[in-house]
This record gives sequence, structure tokens and C-alpha cells, in this order.
Amino acid sequence: MKTLQDIIDSAKKIETKRVAVVGADDFEAVKAVSEAFDEGFVKPVLIGPKDEITKNLEKLGKNFEIIDAASIYESSEKGVRLVSSGAADVLMKGNVKTSVLLKAALNKEWGLRTGSVISHVAVMETPNLEKIVMVTDGGMLVKPDLNQKISIINNAVELARSLYIETPKVAVLAAVEVVNPDMPETLDASILTQMNRRGQIKNCIVDGPLALDNALSEMAAKIKHIESDVAGFADILVVPDIHSGNILGKSAIYLAGGRIAGIILGTAAPIVIVSRADDSKSKMASLALACMNSEKK
Amino acid sequence: MKTLQDIIDSAKKIETKRVAVVGADDFEAVKAVSEAFDEGFVKPVLIGPKDEITKNLEKLGKNFEIIDAASIYESSEKGVRLVSSGAADVLMKGNVKTSVLLKAALNKEWGLRTGSVISHVAVMETPNLEKIVMVTDGGMLVKPDLNQKISIINNAVELARSLYIETPKVAVLAAVEVVNPDMPETLDASILTQMNRRGQIKNCIVDGPLALDNALSEMAAKIKHIESDVAGFADILVVPDIHSGNILGKSAIYLAGGRIAGIILGTAAPIVIVSRADDSKSKMASLALACMNSEKK
Repeated sequence: MKTLQDIIDSAKKIETKRVAVVGADDFEAVKAVSEAFDEGFVKPVLIGPKDEITKNLEKLGKNFEIIDAASIYESSEKGVRLVSSGAADVLMKGNVKTSVLLKAALNKEWGLRTGSVISHVAVMETPNLEKIVMVTDGGMLVKPDLNQKISIINNAVELARSLYIETPKVAVLAAVEVVNPDMPETLDASILTQMNRRGQIKNCIVDGPLALDNALSEMAAKIKHIESDVAGFADILVVPDIHSGNILGKSAIYLAGGRIAGIILGTAAPIVIVSRADDSKSKMASLALACMNSEKK
Repeated sequence: MKTLQDIIDSAKKIETKRVAVVGADDFEAVKAVSEAFDEGFVKPVLIGPKDEITKNLEKLGKNFEIIDAASIYESSEKGVRLVSSGAADVLMKGNVKTSVLLKAALNKEWGLRTGSVISHVAVMETPNLEKIVMVTDGGMLVKPDLNQKISIINNAVELARSLYIETPKVAVLAAVEVVNPDMPETLDASILTQMNRRGQIKNCIVDGPLALDNALSEMAAKIKHIESDVAGFADILVVPDIHSGNILGKSAIYLAGGRIAGIILGTAAPIVIVSRADDSKSKMASLALACMNSEKK
């Protein structure tokens, strides 16, 4: 896959997915699913205060299924139950607090728990990159420990495989490509690499520590004499913490003039949370990512 | 300043600076100072094994001053003494270990200590940025504490002022723009902001925490209703640690197709350490940065 458009095009080729929009009184969210509906890969179900949702639909000249809910708690529960019962495939955040939606998604009785850690993946497209590259986790786990990093990798690998990248190359990033006992990030990277060699992290090739240049540029890796199957060709960049991941994802937009799509993984169904600042192509690609991921499950 | 070329052009307008190349048996380093010499803003002094240096000069058809030194320790001491005595203005790393050169630079008798912390600044240029933006510290301090962050800011502000940015705008970056007690990076950012308001960090406007989008894009800041004199217009991005800084600096090259120039500050004279992977414009801009910084001192 070279661009976010390729992800959208792939989503059009699979079965239409039902997207439950929680808090559909948010016009921007309804507009996003409406555009994905026009492209033919999404069937929206809108949850929230019926009157407000009806107004949004009138503005768009659309007529989607509405499930009335008075509060953000009721909306969240109804949306999550719709997905856990199989009546919807993807959860999307509208006008509800992220914390409320995620709490509902993790409800032990009727939620979407899988035992995995919940993590965020951003998929970057920039004019300078030859293919899409994933960054994780710049949106959910603040400072993941080793076990959480394993889940972060597994979640991203599952997403990559849903995009037909069968054996994704995973670079565990740090400031340097050498192991430095004074930098715990480089120790975790080494351990994750070896766990992958021992078959404890599957369906991918993990290598780290790598610096961003070694991960993305074959030439930069060669200059440093790095022997690696990942260096220069990384599909997935695993960052040390939420700050470095957030900065890296946003640099794709604000330094590089590119775009990112985002998704939350680790639950039984993917969750889409788009940002008000995302352009409409980014939002549609986020929905397409979720549909592809849902198809794989 | 819009591009690295503007920094080079500025360096041409000030007095020529004497650059002591430590370990000038490194052809790439000698080539870089030679090109800066051709542009007219550098006078090289080459330190290291005389025979090797002579060969390098023959290849380039140049004739610069040579100071013979047998080992990397002797080269480092001679280079640092040249600068601390005032016979040279800028120190540049050639074929010596960074740790050996820095240890010499910090020698208590004849070194370049100032009492400040030593930090790295990368200056980024990308097609999407409207001006050059500095990132600090992605190269020296692994996990700076609050006091070290103050020095990091002071060092970068001094550099910005040497580039005629009289009151630089300093964004202290994190993953979010809200203060979160569970993210110590956002607490440091708040404290640094308030210290600036109280006049404890001078000659700049500090604001944080800011996420990268808020720091660089006025629109992104507006969407989030952020009231800030820095948001959208940051000259200096202060990152939480070496990993996030290294990733951000390198994203300017490998995601954005831009360039970075780098410099080490906090010593009595600036130190230039270029990377083998830097292109010749980046190397020249690093030298130009050092010359500008030296002029200010």
C-alpha cells in the first residue's frame, strides 16, 4: 500500500461494514461516515439524542438508522452492545468523551475485551515515503512496559496483515541503533527482537533498537553498517512512549505535508476516533482501516 | 530565516571564523570545511596525523594550516586549547570519538566549560515549514531534568538570537496540550512556562505543554481553542527526551524530504559534529550555525 487512498480502495472491495457512531449529535462524525457511505464501504448506525441527529442528517440530505439515547453513557453502552452482539462491526466516537466510550468498550459483561492491551496505531502517508508506515503507540499508552509493547506490536501486526502486509517489518525505535545500558528503551528493543526470533512474537520481523533514519532509509542503514532485515524497509515503527509517537505521527502532517489515519486496536472490534483537525481524506482512511481490520477478525 | 541557505548566507556576511578540525585525517570533515572555506566564511585549522591530513588536502587541491598530533587524545587537547586560547573560534569533530572530544572540551584547566549544561540543537528545514525550526535536545542529554531543560532552552535561545531571532518562541512539547499529573513532561512544561513569566528564563516566550500540531499550526491551535503567543509560531521545540528529539529531527529528513543542521552548545565555543549521512548543504549549514553563534559570543 502506497497511500491512504489505497486503504480506502481496498475497503471498497470487501463487504460493507456497519459503523456504530456513538454520540452522533456530532456533525463532523456523521459527515465522515456519510462520505464513507457515499464511497460504498460503510453502513452507518447513529446513536445519541434523536432530534440532534435528525438535524445532522437533514443537513446532509441523508437517512440513516438512528438509535435514540439521552446521555453519553447511554449512547456508549448502546453502541458497544451493538458491536458486541454482532449487529455492528466498528465503533466510532462522536460527541462523547473518549474515557466514557473506552470504559464502556471495556465493560466486563457486555464490552469488547479480548485480554489484549488497547493501543493506538497511526498510519502515515507523506510525499517522501514510498509506502504507508505505521506508528504505534502515540495515542493511548503513556509509557508502555515490555509486556505492553508486545501487545502493541501484536495489535499493529494484525492491522498490517489486514492490509495484506503478510509479514510486516517492525522497527523498535530509539535515538540510537546501539544497545546502551543507560537507555532502557534500547534494552526493551533488544528483548523484543530476540522474543521475535524465538517465536514469541509472531507473523512479523522485529528489529531494534533502530533510529528513525536506519528504519526508513536503506542508505542510512548501510552507512552505519547495520545488518538487519528491517532497516530501510520498516512497515511498523514502535516508539518508546506516547510523546515520541505523537510527535512522530504529527510530524507527518506538520513537517511533511502528509496525512495520518488512526485507529484503536486491542478490543474485539476496532474503534475509530478522528480529530477535528483531520481532513476528510484522513477521516475516511481511518474508517477504511477499521473496516479492513474488522474484515480480518 | 526560511532555509538553511539563509543561515549560510548570513555567515558569509560576518567575519570569517577559524574552525579547528580535530582528527582531520577524516576526509569528509576536511571536505566540509574546505567547501565552507570556498564559500568564504571559514578558515580551517587541521589537527591530527600530518601525513594523512596532507593526503586529504592533496585530494582537494587545498593548502590549510596543519597542527600535527599523533593520537585522538593529543588532537582533542590541541584543538580545545586552540579554541580556549582564542586562536580558533569553533571546534569541529573529525576522526575522533565524540566522548574523547567532549571530555577534552570539558577539561577544568584548559577546556571550554561555562557552567552551563551541554546540549544539542538541530535546525530543521522542510518544504512544508514556513521558516526554520529548532529541535532540542535530540542528541546529547538522554532524559533531562527540570534544571537541564532550563539550560537547554537558554542554549537554544542564544543560538536563535545569533540568527537575529531576538525573542524566539519556545514550545515545550508533549503528546497533549493539557496538563496531566500522570505525565511528568506536561508538569515540567508548565513550570518552565511560569518561570519564563517570572523572568527566570529570559529573552524568549515559553509556552507548554503543546503538542506538535499546536506548536506549528495556527489553525490546529485555534481548533483546540489554545490561547498562546507561541502556538502556531514556535521557533524552538523543546522535546521531553533524546528519543523524541532524535525522531523529530530525523523525521524532517526521512518523512519530509528536508534537511537538518546540528550544533552542540553550552561550551565557551560551539562544537560541530556532522554525520556521515548528512548531505553537503547540511554540513555547511552546521558550520554556518557555529560561525553565527561564535560571532554572538
